[in-house]
Amino acid sequence: MKYRKEKSGYLIRLSRGDLLFDSIISFSESESIDSAFFWGIGAVEDVVLGYYDLKKREYVKRDFPGVWELLSLTGNFAKAEDGPIIHAHGVLSDPDNRTIGGHVFGIKTAATVEIYLVSLMSGLERRFDPETGLKLLDI
Amino acid sequence: MKYRKEKSGYLIRLSRGDLLFDSIISFSESESIDSAFFWGIGAVEDVVLGYYDLKKREYVKRDFPGVWELLSLTGNFAKAEDGPIIHAHGVLSDPDNRTIGGHVFGIKTAATVEIYLVSLMSGLERRFDPETGLKLLDI
Amino acid sequence: MKYRKEKSGYLIRLSRGDLLFDSIISFSESESIDSAFFWGIGAVEDVVLGYYDLKKREYVKRDFPGVWELLSLTGNFAKAEDGPIIHAHGVLSDPDNRTIGGHVFGIKTAATVEIYLVSLMSGLERRFDPETGLKLLDI
Repeated sequence: MKYRKEKSGYLIRLSRGDLLFDSIISFSESESIDSAFFWGIGAVEDVVLGYYDLKKREYVKRDFPGVWELLSLTGNFAKAEDGPIIHAHGVLSDPDNRTIGGHVFGIKTAATVEIYLVSLMSGLERRFDPETGLKLLDI
Repeated sequence: MKYRKEKSGYLIRLSRGDLLFDSIISFSESESIDSAFFWGIGAVEDVVLGYYDLKKREYVKRDFPGVWELLSLTGNFAKAEDGPIIHAHGVLSDPDNRTIGGHVFGIKTAATVEIYLVSLMSGLERRFDPETGLKLLDI
Repeated sequence: MKYRKEKSGYLIRLSRGDLLFDSIISFSESESIDSAFFWGIGAVEDVVLGYYDLKKREYVKRDFPGVWELLSLTGNFAKAEDGPIIHAHGVLSDPDNRTIGGHVFGIKTAATVEIYLVSLMSGLERRFDPETGLKLLDI
């Protein structure tokens, strides 16, 4: 993972083998940024996506083997009691341009991931919301 | 709907039951912002998507029952003769990570919607374009 | 293609018949911007999408006839030895709100394409990476 500061954000590039979440955490620690919004595209593998079942209050997770084009990654991170939480959703496509998507649990860089990130004011936190069972942004 | 000002934009969070368009209009009125570009993710329901039929010059609308992960919401708003127009497109996924998408006519927050928004210079307008039958951004 | 400068970026609007890549190159030349990140939505046609086959080190390309809603366009451009390279991924939907997506080789504006773009520091380059066979962002 490499990055550079831009006028109003950061450009981040992941290399083959880099894990998305580890890379973002590593970036956030290097730059002492605890809250941000980000977007990305790339070519990825070891994709694990989820869907939040509101009634059961639990995530359903599925593994997607193979290499996928990452068409749209949109996410953010903020602090929570037990450490930083990355919340990211992704849309991906296969060799026939069919798409899948979901809440991102894990993505590994197959060729590259190119991210643009804007930092948010420090101190953004997620707090447990009893109505949904999720840790929601506390603003 | 809650929001806070960031360095180069706004962070907006919708709560369970909040309608996407009403929330954005409410934000725009509170902050006196008449033009913006925005992005979001979340978990939503009461989804109504459309497709613009260029030949017939009309939108085809479809309802999508159930709760969906909102994977990518990209949109903007500007003024028109008869009030503000929100133009937003969305990609969503179901419990099996299958995706749908289209021009967004309506979305209601099921768990959360997290939006990053950048305001644009005031005065951006949409004007009717006879060639396409649409109100296009007048820049 | 028309555009205007915003506080922290540019708003760009393509008109019916405008090619996405030609328009972005034209914008970049007019504003002397050689590196940027951008996002867009619209209604498009003459869609050509690809998937990078990492093993064969070549792109598989497919044409998608008809008019599509452009739900999410995320991309960037940078310099390379032989000129600027636009790297963009897209998600699109058909009249039944079914989605496709991939690496964008070509898109023509059917009704409109609305883009928000942030310029990056000048000098961003892509260099050939022997491991993946791709020209990757050199940061």
